[in-house]
Amino acid sequence: MIKTAIIGASGYTGFELMRILLAHPEAELVAVTSRQYKGRMVADVFPALAGLTRLSFTDTDDLNSIGEAELVFTALPHGTSQEVVSQLAGNGSNIIDLSADFRLKEPDVYREWYGEHTACKLLQEAVYGLPELHRDQVRGAKVVANPGCYPTSAILGLAPLLRAELIETKNIVIDAKSGVSGAGRGATLATSFVEVNDGFKAYSVGVHRHTPEIEQELSLLAGEGIKVSFTPHLLPVSRGILSTIYATLRQEITTEALLSVYADLYVDEPFVRLMGMDVFPNISQVRGSNYCDIGVRADGRTGMVTIVSVIDNLIKGASGQAVQNMNIMYNLPEETGLSTYPDPI
Amino acid sequence: MIKTAIIGASGYTGFELMRILLAHPEAELVAVTSRQYKGRMVADVFPALAGLTRLSFTDTDDLNSIGEAELVFTALPHGTSQEVVSQLAGNGSNIIDLSADFRLKEPDVYREWYGEHTACKLLQEAVYGLPELHRDQVRGAKVVANPGCYPTSAILGLAPLLRAELIETKNIVIDAKSGVSGAGRGATLATSFVEVNDGFKAYSVGVHRHTPEIEQELSLLAGEGIKVSFTPHLLPVSRGILSTIYATLRQEITTEALLSVYADLYVDEPFVRLMGMDVFPNISQVRGSNYCDIGVRADGRTGMVTIVSVIDNLIKGASGQAVQNMNIMYNLPEETGLSTYPDPI
Amino acid sequence: MIKTAIIGASGYTGFELMRILLAHPEAELVAVTSRQYKGRMVADVFPALAGLTRLSFTDTDDLNSIGEAELVFTALPHGTSQEVVSQLAGNGSNIIDLSADFRLKEPDVYREWYGEHTACKLLQEAVYGLPELHRDQVRGAKVVANPGCYPTSAILGLAPLLRAELIETKNIVIDAKSGVSGAGRGATLATSFVEVNDGFKAYSVGVHRHTPEIEQELSLLAGEGIKVSFTPHLLPVSRGILSTIYATLRQEITTEALLSVYADLYVDEPFVRLMGMDVFPNISQVRGSNYCDIGVRADGRTGMVTIVSVIDNLIKGASGQAVQNMNIMYNLPEETGLSTYPDPI
Amino acid sequence: MIKTAIIGASGYTGFELMRILLAHPEAELVAVTSRQYKGRMVADVFPALAGLTRLSFTDTDDLNSIGEAELVFTALPHGTSQEVVSQLAGNGSNIIDLSADFRLKEPDVYREWYGEHTACKLLQEAVYGLPELHRDQVRGAKVVANPGCYPTSAILGLAPLLRAELIETKNIVIDAKSGVSGAGRGATLATSFVEVNDGFKAYSVGVHRHTPEIEQELSLLAGEGIKVSFTPHLLPVSRGILSTIYATLRQEITTEALLSVYADLYVDEPFVRLMGMDVFPNISQVRGSNYCDIGVRADGRTGMVTIVSVIDNLIKGASGQAVQNMNIMYNLPEETGLSTYPDPI
Repeated sequence: MIKTAIIGASGYTGFELMRILLAHPEAELVAVTSRQYKGRMVADVFPALAGLTRLSFTDTDDLNSIGEAELVFTALPHGTSQEVVSQLAGNGSNIIDLSADFRLKEPDVYREWYGEHTACKLLQEAVYGLPELHRDQVRGAKVVANPGCYPTSAILGLAPLLRAELIETKNIVIDAKSGVSGAGRGATLATSFVEVNDGFKAYSVGVHRHTPEIEQELSLLAGEGIKVSFTPHLLPVSRGILSTIYATLRQEITTEALLSVYADLYVDEPFVRLMGMDVFPNISQVRGSNYCDIGVRADGRTGMVTIVSVIDNLIKGASGQAVQNMNIMYNLPEETGLSTYPDPI
Repeated sequence: MIKTAIIGASGYTGFELMRILLAHPEAELVAVTSRQYKGRMVADVFPALAGLTRLSFTDTDDLNSIGEAELVFTALPHGTSQEVVSQLAGNGSNIIDLSADFRLKEPDVYREWYGEHTACKLLQEAVYGLPELHRDQVRGAKVVANPGCYPTSAILGLAPLLRAELIETKNIVIDAKSGVSGAGRGATLATSFVEVNDGFKAYSVGVHRHTPEIEQELSLLAGEGIKVSFTPHLLPVSRGILSTIYATLRQEITTEALLSVYADLYVDEPFVRLMGMDVFPNISQVRGSNYCDIGVRADGRTGMVTIVSVIDNLIKGASGQAVQNMNIMYNLPEETGLSTYPDPI
Repeated sequence: MIKTAIIGASGYTGFELMRILLAHPEAELVAVTSRQYKGRMVADVFPALAGLTRLSFTDTDDLNSIGEAELVFTALPHGTSQEVVSQLAGNGSNIIDLSADFRLKEPDVYREWYGEHTACKLLQEAVYGLPELHRDQVRGAKVVANPGCYPTSAILGLAPLLRAELIETKNIVIDAKSGVSGAGRGATLATSFVEVNDGFKAYSVGVHRHTPEIEQELSLLAGEGIKVSFTPHLLPVSRGILSTIYATLRQEITTEALLSVYADLYVDEPFVRLMGMDVFPNISQVRGSNYCDIGVRADGRTGMVTIVSVIDNLIKGASGQAVQNMNIMYNLPEETGLSTYPDPI
Repeated sequence: MIKTAIIGASGYTGFELMRILLAHPEAELVAVTSRQYKGRMVADVFPALAGLTRLSFTDTDDLNSIGEAELVFTALPHGTSQEVVSQLAGNGSNIIDLSADFRLKEPDVYREWYGEHTACKLLQEAVYGLPELHRDQVRGAKVVANPGCYPTSAILGLAPLLRAELIETKNIVIDAKSGVSGAGRGATLATSFVEVNDGFKAYSVGVHRHTPEIEQELSLLAGEGIKVSFTPHLLPVSRGILSTIYATLRQEITTEALLSVYADLYVDEPFVRLMGMDVFPNISQVRGSNYCDIGVRADGRTGMVTIVSVIDNLIKGASGQAVQNMNIMYNLPEETGLSTYPDPI
């Protein structure tokens, strides 16, 4: 049994991590921390877990409170995560960090979008934990930077086309839509029910911090620098991300041929499912699961390709992918503890 | 008082037309027809109107039942509208047709996307009723083809840029999201609550019938043939459309300069509102109103422009625009009966 | 033109008051105050009102900022309203107070449920502004206590039966469900989208502060002290209240006879609509309007009556009723500015 | 491995049964039938199950198509289930029937609420499968009538009080609210997104067919005939039932004492969770799980008790309870295959 802890467990990703780890057959959850709820029973804060755990939240500011955990999930706001991860790494823990702090390899890029980085050495060691692209590095990693939710859906949607050099690297458009849980569990007017219900909007147009993360991985795939037009939107749903992606085809190609390019890359992937001809996924069909479902279509009229990629932002976009990374690090079958069937109802 | 009638009044656009016309100070609603509800009191079918009208639905198949109406709104499914409009025109009525039957000027294009057209002569006479572009023709029209909901938001969002020749005419992407009322009031599994709630999906990817309508008007503006990548999505809200539009800038330009290009075209428009720098509209801010709200941003990093355009699909995207067209045809102030303030709550 | 002001205009009831008053043909809105937004343009805070008003928020703490308003709507939290209303009354203003501060006639009852009252004399003068029961007193009032949202729906639902002495005064059950806007516009975890969406719960079971307000008016109607079982619930909708009310019939009576008892009381009421036999209202059918719609059924099996009463909590349950009271105070037709047709879509 | 089949598997309860049985460690799903989808792959009809099953729907009208299943779940409309269950019973299958056909023990009562019963003998043999009340009979049953969703929440909420004779048997009020999936998967205007979204209504007031089922079990508990006022409402959520129940206390009693009465009955129940003092459950906290969560409060002011009982209507209210019954019939630990943690997000 892998002894695990979660630092910053009272948000939505923390909660989902608890749900998954409490039921994981090869992991034990020994500690969960929360500044806001320290000292309170988890089951009192989250009545859904009544009768399912006797854990109480310990203090995030006291790292000793994680006890004998050998693997620590950090789910803290970006910026504050760096220091905690550094300390934990110094103590010899393995770490899967769900913040943005260790995702951008270039300190300069991090500085431009987030601010100064105070753990640049560790940044170099950290592995970007998108298993479908970096499984081998994850296997030996001490610190895994768990990918952002938008980047996961966008990168998995574009990887096969870039790898096969089928699309222009200019004018890539990623129009992404996310459920509200992606904004976290803090109480804000912008995420209050009345403001969100029956509404829909774009936000952070042209300036969202997931942009450089997407560009880093796409550039790596293409072997050249790529800039994308990325626009996130806020959906009036609790969970789920759908990215609609547009790119210019370098040559005429059928949808059928495109699908086989996707199949080449993803055939053995346990958590990527390809839709058939003219079928596009709904976010509801992956709800509660670690799947990324992808549909694709070549448009002869315009010479462009349209890709639709969906994930559950809290699972494949956060906590599920974190556990997938844990499974890889500990040589477990990758689906262990992640075999919940999606529930679209 | 303009005597009006609605043919096919039991759908959502029909209902909104009734609401607007019943309260319109210069119009009288003398008849409403419905195959499904013929003989029933409007207020029984729509309890929201209890005490507000004594009208009963007459039979759609009996055009005499519209009595002395001089202006007829037809809200029938495409294909079936042609014949009814032809008959009404023959009887000397003025007509505002909310179907797609008279929007596409080229019979060949109509045939490709919808099927054979049986009233090609009338098609040539009909005016595409987007007041912001064709106000003068609407003024003298006998038959107005009321624009589609998606096209209204997309065309108003792109018109200033095409007219000013600021963008490439290739690679225009229109990623549009609509509330469920856009699919009509018929009972289908795809629009049932459980299927839609908490879900989100693209549909008719690359093949939606509003594509040629958008292309017709954009081509007219650009003076050259334009093909667009248009992807509609189904939002889990009842009403509202948001189109996020991407195009490649022909030259470097600031957002400020772009905004002034938009202001040039729309400064006197009663129903177009421009957002300020870095402000983008939410569908909720136009709910229940005839406004089209537009935000725009030039992106120096990518050389592209992002436009966000929102409307209430049932008002500016259908019934409100129809009444705006009526006001123009009858030389009334364009806001008459359309001054309801939006309610975002 | 009645010159009006709103103290505390940045909440949802304040916003709806602005919407109604800006369009009211006999009222002018000269000032709106907000602590949070003082100095900011109303149209910037609420983009739905872009182009519709040039007002800016003034400072709630500076009562001079309301200028020449002769009628002031106060929409402040209970407890803080007392002092402001006292000052305004001292200045000679007419006041319609939307807080709970002047609704309970007995200072002891106020103390028990809210705390000490510091303006007991004014409390005696204030009129409980439910027009259907107290129209004559409202006509001559200087201070109107605008009823709570739950009480409005519950009292209108029960008044005919109590007045006609048709039900037992014991064991009355009021099971009420409200949209989230009833909780105000403050950002809290409990009213955040993710917590509310797809959820439903009872709250303040047995201890909600609207209980004594309901009991005060029901007791007045019955001529004896009444205690009710009142349970509010939080609906995952933005607006609307539905109260399902149960009482024991004193004698056998048909639903038809019950309906005629309701008709006796409400036949001339402009804002109460009775449903027919076996028809019960949906909150959506009054949305955006000042109507209270009521359905009723006698159950021979159990000897009980079931009443369903719906309102829009922000209109008939708050801002619409406040304007209805203004119309009465100023001898205007009661529907002035309140004739918006409900929109159920 | 228990070989199982589902007759009528294409509705929401059928889908949830598939999800649970496909993942059940001691059951094998060998056949699923559907009139509508016969011949189609399950994973095509329900893309959420892509890659998770190779089953195709067989024809409901060909009972041989269930092959070697020894336990059959029937999820057919009431009325049509009787004959199929009779045939299956004749073939020696064990049956868990999710329709209403075998729940009412008295043929006369069945006739009054549903129509003629054509399998009265089997009706007498069938066991009402509410494990918390009838576990021993379920153990030896051949035909289990799986309880209705509303009855499950109402009966579990009232059982401890009736058994302990703490409440009057008159004037019991059950005000119940259900998510839309309770209405089934058929396409109807009443359950379409636009009609349900932002709405809320009571329906079947005083005449809902779950009334006699509730009364049958409450009468059994009380040892005397009980009639209840039962009002169902339609919540704008996909799943979940919350019943708020009101009864008159026979004597003064504290909430603490009430809670201990509930604990007496439910302490060993794996799927009933009691809330603490002044805590009431939200439907979201049982979502996706087989739990029934109950909160209770004695009200000294009114002499009444208020009980709030929540379930997931598709799990404890249908498919989960059916599998719980299967586990009991086959002497498996009751939680087998039902240990999914609820997910409130």
